[in-house]
Amino acid sequence: LTITTEFELIARYFAPLAEGAPGAFGLTDDAAALPSRRGNDLVLTKDAIVAGVHFLPDDPPGDIARKLLRVNLSDLAAKGAAPEGYLLAMALPSPVDEDWLAAFVTGLGEDQKQFGLHLYGGDTVATSGPLTLSMTAFGWVAAGRMLRRHCARPGDHLFVTGTIGDGMLGLRCLRGEFPALDEADRRHLVTRYRLPSPRLGVGAALDGMASAAIDVSDGLAADAGHIARVSGVRLLIEEGAVPLSHAARRLLAGGQVTFDALATGGDDYELLFTVPAEQAGRVPELAQAVAVPITRIGRVESGSGVAFVDANGQERRLKQGGYTHF
Amino acid sequence: LTITTEFELIARYFAPLAEGAPGAFGLTDDAAALPSRRGNDLVLTKDAIVAGVHFLPDDPPGDIARKLLRVNLSDLAAKGAAPEGYLLAMALPSPVDEDWLAAFVTGLGEDQKQFGLHLYGGDTVATSGPLTLSMTAFGWVAAGRMLRRHCARPGDHLFVTGTIGDGMLGLRCLRGEFPALDEADRRHLVTRYRLPSPRLGVGAALDGMASAAIDVSDGLAADAGHIARVSGVRLLIEEGAVPLSHAARRLLAGGQVTFDALATGGDDYELLFTVPAEQAGRVPELAQAVAVPITRIGRVESGSGVAFVDANGQERRLKQGGYTHF
Repeated sequence: LTITTEFELIARYFAPLAEGAPGAFGLTDDAAALPSRRGNDLVLTKDAIVAGVHFLPDDPPGDIARKLLRVNLSDLAAKGAAPEGYLLAMALPSPVDEDWLAAFVTGLGEDQKQFGLHLYGGDTVATSGPLTLSMTAFGWVAAGRMLRRHCARPGDHLFVTGTIGDGMLGLRCLRGEFPALDEADRRHLVTRYRLPSPRLGVGAALDGMASAAIDVSDGLAADAGHIARVSGVRLLIEEGAVPLSHAARRLLAGGQVTFDALATGGDDYELLFTVPAEQAGRVPELAQAVAVPITRIGRVESGSGVAFVDANGQERRLKQGGYTHF
Repeated sequence: LTITTEFELIARYFAPLAEGAPGAFGLTDDAAALPSRRGNDLVLTKDAIVAGVHFLPDDPPGDIARKLLRVNLSDLAAKGAAPEGYLLAMALPSPVDEDWLAAFVTGLGEDQKQFGLHLYGGDTVATSGPLTLSMTAFGWVAAGRMLRRHCARPGDHLFVTGTIGDGMLGLRCLRGEFPALDEADRRHLVTRYRLPSPRLGVGAALDGMASAAIDVSDGLAADAGHIARVSGVRLLIEEGAVPLSHAARRLLAGGQVTFDALATGGDDYELLFTVPAEQAGRVPELAQAVAVPITRIGRVESGSGVAFVDANGQERRLKQGGYTHF
């Protein structure tokens, strides 16, 4: 089979992903129509990824697709939004590798089913450069209730879901580091790198509870810094409280990775959020309801920036500011 | 000045483009919230362009920006939608050329003002390949009234706005062809290639009048073919009726370009639409109201495909099917 036109490519691979979304019109048009929903705002977010920068060119294509979708879903989760759909732009090296494309689309289909959203449209073009993907995801929140980053207040408690540092460690495993790590730990880290878990259930439950929220994509330190900057406060994080996986704890104990590397590593896609003290007692119940571990890792103070408190009670700033794009 | 973080880049260049869109939150968040609009659907469309494929790497950066915006606005025009905003993903070769970026953003700002929409968010990443841009544009239509491609019926009249073939000729001028063309004609064609005119006024007025509509991006023949296929009809186009600019007529008369090249060239961004016979009489009045030339170029018949009728009344199919992406 060879694809000669964009029309064939859409009909064969992408149209099935639009089934179940009436406003996508089976991708026979080049636009979608999304009915307004009374009392709701549409949350829109966009992420781009490039082969060799954000994923490895020989990563399994289904995993690349699912990670792109999950990274966008993680943004929606941090806003408390319920996913509705997405648009996908692909700049593909020519000629198109149909086996690769079929596997990519299969990955999208699996995750669409799991997370309950549909493809609404997009664009496919040829490029002389690396595979480049851009996704716009959208979902619904109650009107005026999008979770944001700007209302953290001194006295609020700081929480994070899941564990920190695994995504970065998984990438380093794939690059051949940590050969002494046992197979189960290694598999755990690689899976965390390739298939993050967007915390949609947590995000949805934070409405009326969190004063600020963000998903940890640039690293715990950097994303805490975003909340601190936009809210005009200082975030204080207790190093010993930061939740780590079994694998991360072993590497840390063995001196193969530093705490600072874990806290600045990026690619976690956990939710970091602040809750006023009087509401903080409700968080364990929420964690149980959505079956996601949530850990209190610090507090909000007046001031600016992010400080870490070590085992001796000493405050310090991390040397590295987290992932920067340029 | 050098940019070291994505945060600085957003604050310096992109945040000003979000002023006037409350739901963009000054780009301090990585998502936007768009309030639902009672009785309206949100139309969403996405286009990607790559340096060396869709534009020339040394094109003026402001023109690249404006063309990307206008190509997306042309999609909205073909749906009858009123533009509201857009999201922009940029994969930029490193290091970032700030002069280039400043000029790019200036172009966006000019066209935002002209067409009445705002930046709602996006993503900027580094790439080892060519500059790659992806835009998601959105706008409003009355609920259930998005213009589509699927209701052209035998007996309908076929219309097109503006002139056909200029975009392709403009690109060929930039590549050094047609050296004998006089300067005014040459400037006209290059401007048509670099800065298409999205026909938003026409699109908005077609609600309740057009049975099918599309914007001519892949070439008149190919886009007529899209309507024919999705509507399950045949489109018959009279060659002599296809509107051509002064420059295109001169090149055609001089044998420097064929009619088939004009009708398959792409990059026109005019609207092609069908109107039931009993409504077709209203079209000249519409053209006058929006001050855009509209020409009747043919009709809809039962059957399939697109046929052109030449000066001798002979029907034929064009050899070339229009621009294909792979």
